[in-house]
Amino acid sequence: MKAIEWMEGSVRFIDQTELPGKLEYIVTTDYRVLIEAIKMLRVRGAPLIGITAAYAAVLAAKEGMETGVKDPLVWTAKAIKEIGESRPTARNLFFALERMKKVIDDNGSETIGKIYELMVSAAMDIEKEDEKMCLMMGEYGSELIKDGFGIITHCNTGMLVTAGQGTALGVVYHASRQNKKLHVYADETRPLLQGARLTTWECRNYGIPVTLICDNAAATVVRQGKVNCAIVGADRIAANGDTANKIGTYNLALICKAHNVPFYVAAPYSTFDFSLKTGNEIPIEERKPDEIVKINMGRIAPEGIDAYNPAFDVTPAELISAIITEEGVFKQPYGEWKKLNSK
Amino acid sequence: MKAIEWMEGSVRFIDQTELPGKLEYIVTTDYRVLIEAIKMLRVRGAPLIGITAAYAAVLAAKEGMETGVKDPLVWTAKAIKEIGESRPTARNLFFALERMKKVIDDNGSETIGKIYELMVSAAMDIEKEDEKMCLMMGEYGSELIKDGFGIITHCNTGMLVTAGQGTALGVVYHASRQNKKLHVYADETRPLLQGARLTTWECRNYGIPVTLICDNAAATVVRQGKVNCAIVGADRIAANGDTANKIGTYNLALICKAHNVPFYVAAPYSTFDFSLKTGNEIPIEERKPDEIVKINMGRIAPEGIDAYNPAFDVTPAELISAIITEEGVFKQPYGEWKKLNSK
Repeated sequence: MKAIEWMEGSVRFIDQTELPGKLEYIVTTDYRVLIEAIKMLRVRGAPLIGITAAYAAVLAAKEGMETGVKDPLVWTAKAIKEIGESRPTARNLFFALERMKKVIDDNGSETIGKIYELMVSAAMDIEKEDEKMCLMMGEYGSELIKDGFGIITHCNTGMLVTAGQGTALGVVYHASRQNKKLHVYADETRPLLQGARLTTWECRNYGIPVTLICDNAAATVVRQGKVNCAIVGADRIAANGDTANKIGTYNLALICKAHNVPFYVAAPYSTFDFSLKTGNEIPIEERKPDEIVKINMGRIAPEGIDAYNPAFDVTPAELISAIITEEGVFKQPYGEWKKLNSK
Repeated sequence: MKAIEWMEGSVRFIDQTELPGKLEYIVTTDYRVLIEAIKMLRVRGAPLIGITAAYAAVLAAKEGMETGVKDPLVWTAKAIKEIGESRPTARNLFFALERMKKVIDDNGSETIGKIYELMVSAAMDIEKEDEKMCLMMGEYGSELIKDGFGIITHCNTGMLVTAGQGTALGVVYHASRQNKKLHVYADETRPLLQGARLTTWECRNYGIPVTLICDNAAATVVRQGKVNCAIVGADRIAANGDTANKIGTYNLALICKAHNVPFYVAAPYSTFDFSLKTGNEIPIEERKPDEIVKINMGRIAPEGIDAYNPAFDVTPAELISAIITEEGVFKQPYGEWKKLNSK
């Protein structure tokens, strides 16, 4: 199962809004379909958004080349800008698009055909690197996971959001392959229920025991001692370690802090945005109230009620016990963030 | 609108599982229908469960009297035991049934007809007292609510769960009648969404601005400074102040503590259970996983996934800034709990 795949001129991806009910693939040659897929969370999770954006840029270049627009490179650069406006928070989106843009900028004297080939190659590199990064995060992160651990996680951070085994959930898979017996507590993750729909599905497919809980039961489960650590992904990490991730992550971090349970973040190094000093500078996407008030085609609140729907929150660095990257595990105190920072 | 009403020999109540879509009343003369209504959360909220249980006992006595069972009082006592097994956590349920039982025990020499009349009168007293207690809680509690306050609340604690204006939400209504401008942030309250379905509906009906949020957004809303206090109800309070309330209350209390936002509990004095030293002794109801995985007739998780669904959690007394009762506001430090305790 691959969440996204390059098919020699077209892109195939799983429509994650249909999971776990249906495993449905969409094949497209139109970058606008990929933009819509990002916006509508058919593809989701920071690393996968980055890979999808890279392939969207490739499809745009192909379209520019084949439809005989006046200046295919200018046209592609415009499309890349459009792709970059699909979602505001995940660092990976911009990181991937910057790389694609650089291919164009560095090869301005080449033919569009050659540039297209280089872009395909760069997008595939991003995908391959992501797969490898997942393995490295698993390698480093699994050292923190002991046999018999109960692990609470938020949202979905596994095979569906990367080209590999995942970020936070990838660490769990990795530890599980080391014959550690683990039990995952999956926050359902309102409003879009990625934990209920996707994390439970992935864990079961992988053979790891998983218990679904409402986000509201997290404090109880942690207090009951069922949980030895929390591990979550990240959409963007500021230079000081403040971490933007799926709404509710900050709640979970506060709960873990109150119970002295380690709280780990697992994300590729590229999730760091050193241009931002603290989490206050991370742009937080606000999504439509409909995501809250409509579930399974029915309403759960009266018509016309005001609802506030931030898609992410920011967990302050002081609540994070360690950040697991493909470069290694970075721990408090802050001196070591600095080391990371100054690499 | 009354959540429950005695109709001279029958009981009429709102089926709250149909709200806010439909305002539907059920009329019954069968105490078993009331037991089912309590179990299925058609009537819900600690005070209303108490009132419903009292009327269920009355209907049982009537049935015992009219169907010519051998010993109507023994029969009624058995029914009262059955009613007491409908839900385990709310103190009010047992408090109300103890009062009904006492009417029988104290009047053993009277005719069953007379005892039935006394039971009707006792149940109506419980209802009237509840209405009055709500007003007193509003009176005391509204002193804590200032003009311009943003108030976060969990679950539903208003007119739908009492014979009066409510407990926690009743305090908000009371303050609003004092011309204080308020804004309510309603936690949606998974799994059963009483905040989304009922609190938003009540606030709008009452004319108080309300914003619905996912429980996951509570930490963000509190950190953003939108909230000046939290106020919630209670199902049972141990002698030391530890408070059982709807699952997620403890999460919210931790969030408030981390941001120095006062966290208030509003509940009738009878919610205290002085037979329990701490919250560890409060029995916590665990409900079916289906409440989590099925919404609006559709599934949100794969078939057969394990889900843990405690209906309540326990908030330690040290996270509670004050408990508002009809007897006054009891604040930390613990000396004052003791005063309450020794009354």
